Amino acid sequence: MMQEESRSEQTPVDVILRGGIVLTMDPKRRIISPGSVAIRDTHIEAVGTDAEIEQLYTSDTIVDCADHVIMPGLVNTHTHMPMSLLRGLADDLRLDVWLYGYILPVERQFANPEFSFLGTQLSCAEMLRGGTTTFCDMYYHEEEVAWAAVQAGMRGVCGETIIKFPTPDAASFEESLQYCADFVEHWQDHELIVAAPAPHSAYMTTLEILQRTTALARDHEVPQIIHVSETADEVENWIDLTAMRPMRWLEAQGVLESNVVAAHCVHINSEEMAIAKKHRVGIAHNPTSNLKLASGIAPIAEMLELGLNVGIGTDGCASNNDLDMLEETRLAALLPKGVTQSPVVVPAVEAVAMATLYGARALHLDHLIGSLESGKRADLIVLGLTGTHSVPRFETTGINIYSQIVYAAKGCDVRDVFVNGRAVVRDHTLLTIDEAKVIAQAREAAKRINRFFVEHEKSVLDKLVAIGGLQQHETFEVQAKALVQDLDAIKANLLQSDLPITRHTSRDQYDTYFVFGDETRLRYREDHVIQSDGTVIPIYNLTLTGPAREAEYQDSVVLSRSRYTAPADRSLRFYREYFSPTAEQEISKHRDRYHIRYKGVDFAVNLDHIIKPQTDQDFCEIKSRTWSRQDALRKAALISELLVILGAQPEDMVGPEYVSLF
Amino acid sequence: MMQEESRSEQTPVDVILRGGIVLTMDPKRRIISPGSVAIRDTHIEAVGTDAEIEQLYTSDTIVDCADHVIMPGLVNTHTHMPMSLLRGLADDLRLDVWLYGYILPVERQFANPEFSFLGTQLSCAEMLRGGTTTFCDMYYHEEEVAWAAVQAGMRGVCGETIIKFPTPDAASFEESLQYCADFVEHWQDHELIVAAPAPHSAYMTTLEILQRTTALARDHEVPQIIHVSETADEVENWIDLTAMRPMRWLEAQGVLESNVVAAHCVHINSEEMAIAKKHRVGIAHNPTSNLKLASGIAPIAEMLELGLNVGIGTDGCASNNDLDMLEETRLAALLPKGVTQSPVVVPAVEAVAMATLYGARALHLDHLIGSLESGKRADLIVLGLTGTHSVPRFETTGINIYSQIVYAAKGCDVRDVFVNGRAVVRDHTLLTIDEAKVIAQAREAAKRINRFFVEHEKSVLDKLVAIGGLQQHETFEVQAKALVQDLDAIKANLLQSDLPITRHTSRDQYDTYFVFGDETRLRYREDHVIQSDGTVIPIYNLTLTGPAREAEYQDSVVLSRSRYTAPADRSLRFYREYFSPTAEQEISKHRDRYHIRYKGVDFAVNLDHIIKPQTDQDFCEIKSRTWSRQDALRKAALISELLVILGAQPEDMVGPEYVSLF
Repeated sequence: MMQEESRSEQTPVDVILRGGIVLTMDPKRRIISPGSVAIRDTHIEAVGTDAEIEQLYTSDTIVDCADHVIMPGLVNTHTHMPMSLLRGLADDLRLDVWLYGYILPVERQFANPEFSFLGTQLSCAEMLRGGTTTFCDMYYHEEEVAWAAVQAGMRGVCGETIIKFPTPDAASFEESLQYCADFVEHWQDHELIVAAPAPHSAYMTTLEILQRTTALARDHEVPQIIHVSETADEVENWIDLTAMRPMRWLEAQGVLESNVVAAHCVHINSEEMAIAKKHRVGIAHNPTSNLKLASGIAPIAEMLELGLNVGIGTDGCASNNDLDMLEETRLAALLPKGVTQSPVVVPAVEAVAMATLYGARALHLDHLIGSLESGKRADLIVLGLTGTHSVPRFETTGINIYSQIVYAAKGCDVRDVFVNGRAVVRDHTLLTIDEAKVIAQAREAAKRINRFFVEHEKSVLDKLVAIGGLQQHETFEVQAKALVQDLDAIKANLLQSDLPITRHTSRDQYDTYFVFGDETRLRYREDHVIQSDGTVIPIYNLTLTGPAREAEYQDSVVLSRSRYTAPADRSLRFYREYFSPTAEQEISKHRDRYHIRYKGVDFAVNLDHIIKPQTDQDFCEIKSRTWSRQDALRKAALISELLVILGAQPEDMVGPEYVSLF
Repeated sequence: MMQEESRSEQTPVDVILRGGIVLTMDPKRRIISPGSVAIRDTHIEAVGTDAEIEQLYTSDTIVDCADHVIMPGLVNTHTHMPMSLLRGLADDLRLDVWLYGYILPVERQFANPEFSFLGTQLSCAEMLRGGTTTFCDMYYHEEEVAWAAVQAGMRGVCGETIIKFPTPDAASFEESLQYCADFVEHWQDHELIVAAPAPHSAYMTTLEILQRTTALARDHEVPQIIHVSETADEVENWIDLTAMRPMRWLEAQGVLESNVVAAHCVHINSEEMAIAKKHRVGIAHNPTSNLKLASGIAPIAEMLELGLNVGIGTDGCASNNDLDMLEETRLAALLPKGVTQSPVVVPAVEAVAMATLYGARALHLDHLIGSLESGKRADLIVLGLTGTHSVPRFETTGINIYSQIVYAAKGCDVRDVFVNGRAVVRDHTLLTIDEAKVIAQAREAAKRINRFFVEHEKSVLDKLVAIGGLQQHETFEVQAKALVQDLDAIKANLLQSDLPITRHTSRDQYDTYFVFGDETRLRYREDHVIQSDGTVIPIYNLTLTGPAREAEYQDSVVLSRSRYTAPADRSLRFYREYFSPTAEQEISKHRDRYHIRYKGVDFAVNLDHIIKPQTDQDFCEIKSRTWSRQDALRKAALISELLVILGAQPEDMVGPEYVSLF
């Protein structure tokens, strides 16, 4: 176990944990009882029997671990730390209602740096108490997450979330990427923190985002964190879009050339598992969240059989609703038995490995943590087996201790926690966080959120969400509109130009705008699309737009923020009663819409004749949508060029939307 | 809420719980906050707002419940109380290895009255600490379970298990039934205990047993407890046997005319659910156990949809491995979402109802317990919401408190527990059980069991179990054997009698007996069954018999106890090496076997010519098997009659088996 030294020359170390059942989780899964662990500085100096360690080491701090298990700290491979502040905000709801009705509105309003810091403090407190020493996070304002973790003395892989939508910490993904690059740079080689990019998922990002996060992760030798195949719908949609399953697509795009931590992987097949294995993709299995959100049950037994690095995660508190890794480990052991109808799959020893060693591998940190071996960081916990629920204890199979931990032990049995050699919990007392203060602040934050919901209970978006079918569109809409004297001349210019027209429709549009006090507008549109044989196909939908208008460029090119649409399958009368608008406005027009390409970009050109109000005015409108703010700038310039080509006069440009014009 | 009284005349009560969030679970699911509950004697006197209760009642004992939930005590609808003493004995094994290799040997050796008493004390301590106030048990020595529960101040439906095999408390089912009848009689109308019959299951009992338990339950107006459709195999086998699914069969036999508590119901279909509803069958749902033993996932969402009375159970500690009802409730809420792919099924409020009110209904006790309503028994708990994992708390949906309990609260959050008006836990201290003593005794018991396993590690049965395919046969074998001078004469008597011969086979049997020190014998038999065309079909099997011989009746009719058989698909050489017998013995014979019926009973008549050893002796052997000791007595008499009919002489009767004869 260690080199021979003379008895008289015991080496001094900082701490010796003595007399426990040492679960090493080393390659031989050695259990040493009664066993000791010697800690020096940040590292495990030695692991052995009490006699062996006593002979070789001495310390001023000897911790008696009789009737306790000494084991590696638990590794929570997927969570959203600040979301503990949203614990129990809304549960047991349809995904769209939960997300658009509760989580997004709150995050829009409250997810600032203080929120990330306080939420991380609260999560660290709960996690440390329950024996978790390392987390892998994905959220916003990730600098704050890192700082809060360092203060709590916790190890963390902190993933700055990047999506194509605006986020609480960035108006565009370019900003997110810049923030993330600075963040990764800043924390390089920190003792506790690994700063990393976290592109949310393939469907919430773009190829460009993924290419840039992959480059960032490779350049700085940090992992990148991404949700993969959480729901069946997501996978189906991705196959429709790319003709590839997500893991296969990520491989094809080179994303797996970096150290990836893939969260969920509920719906991956054997081919994808082989891909994940080939690229050493870490899998973060979140059994509670996957059940609670009705995503399904990940094929963990098969993944483990194939030797994949499957760790366990709690996911965020908004879908769990706690951060109890022992509870999660228990579920990870139980579920595959029921699903595969075999009681021998994922035995307790494998479940403990998932919660520790395999979790460390999944985070690409197994050179530092995950087992109790000389030279690794001293991240370990002391777990009591003295509670009524832990009595009695058998030694009939040689591995009873693992089932005791997985099937009976509780988070509240964790007595001591060490991270990086530092005692952060001793005798159930948290030493690094002022827990009472954090709890009080969390309650204050919840009060503000409660008030927000009371005030916004009847918000238009909530009500729209409640109807269902809601979709959020590309973040940015770039548009310009010109009043034109001769619509036919514009049309002739368009047709005579060499701009390729990919599609043309002709339609009458009957819009009813519901106007609300805060400049929010909901449009009910009846779109009568005129077919080539003269018949009409009506399409009904609702579009919600807020007061926000991002910027106005040259030639009144307007950049506006994302909006929400939903199919309208009920009557105007219903919506009027349901939404109770403060005012109402009608606009009707005939619209010829041409989809064209210009310099490789798609645009819609609308030639509109206003019918109601009876102004007898005509307009030419050019629109494009994009996820990227920089792309929006480029498109704004192209729109100006197009207006010239079509013969619109700069002095005829109008900024406002129709609803504000009349 | 209550009658008007004058302010000056407050009614004195025993206890007032004040200032909590009162979850009434009444028909309107009222939540009263801040609310109070007034307890008088064994009953809830009144439930109301703090102001209402303060105006009308006064008490010397006011319990401050600020930041706590006051709710009905949890109802554990299915468990095996004494099995907490086997917690973690053996896990993650094939069912046969677990059952025959661990649980049954231990129960044979250790399950005495003291075991039931101590195990129930341990279970009561764990349950009360975790907020469970009522359990429904199924085990042996149930008198002891009841006494231990009464001492602990816990409410219990105590089901005395009845099966067709011998049990730790009865050598035959007749004894069990008699024990059970006395037991039910004894506890009639007790404040806390409902004594009840618990026929284990259809497949482990007989129709006669079920008819008698049903009569007992109906006569004494107590429920009967039975496992129903726990595994898919069980259901398939039952359909093969009866052409009916189990619930349908139970209805057809009249069993559902009593108040039934059906445990598990993992594999019941819509028709069976309708039957269960019609007969008000209580369903005990055991999600952890059903996963851990790989039984499957019960269709709880559908059952609740149909309005069935579905309660939650932990099952015994040998398949869980704890008695944590909040953990079970959480799983009961999560699983159906994942399985039905709908996040809105079994919302938290339904899960809490399953753990309380529906559980009470499932046990046919909802007139007494399950909700906080004036007049019901004062079974209630005070649950803290002050831990880090319970912070913050929202009031956004009106029902956030239910998700807080189901998705975040822990057993260790239970502060106070009242059963039947009596405080059994106050400030996390258990008042009714000397917990340290019980824990110490449980550890001693475990030591004895550990030693037993060390000693028996290489027992023949264990090794037989490890090979697989093991079966246990009818409990009792009744047989008689006579040395005969003229085998042909006996044969002629048989053929000339009017005894109907249902089947005849002719075979050469080559037996090798492995003999072990403790009189245990394992027989390897090569059975060459001779076909009508003279060809031979060989059959190989292993039979284990112990030293136990129950009784010897008139004419050397021998009653022996159950034995185990397994197909032998490996070579004699393999088994010799594997079992390492202390001695070995060979016996070969030619056997003509006639299956006959006599007075409505099936018998096998073997006409045996011994080939090895070369004694040149012939024997006539008559055998029958049965589940019932009384039936065995009756058959022994018939065998004596048959021997006379066949012309065997009483003076030629031989008691010992062949292996002991030569």
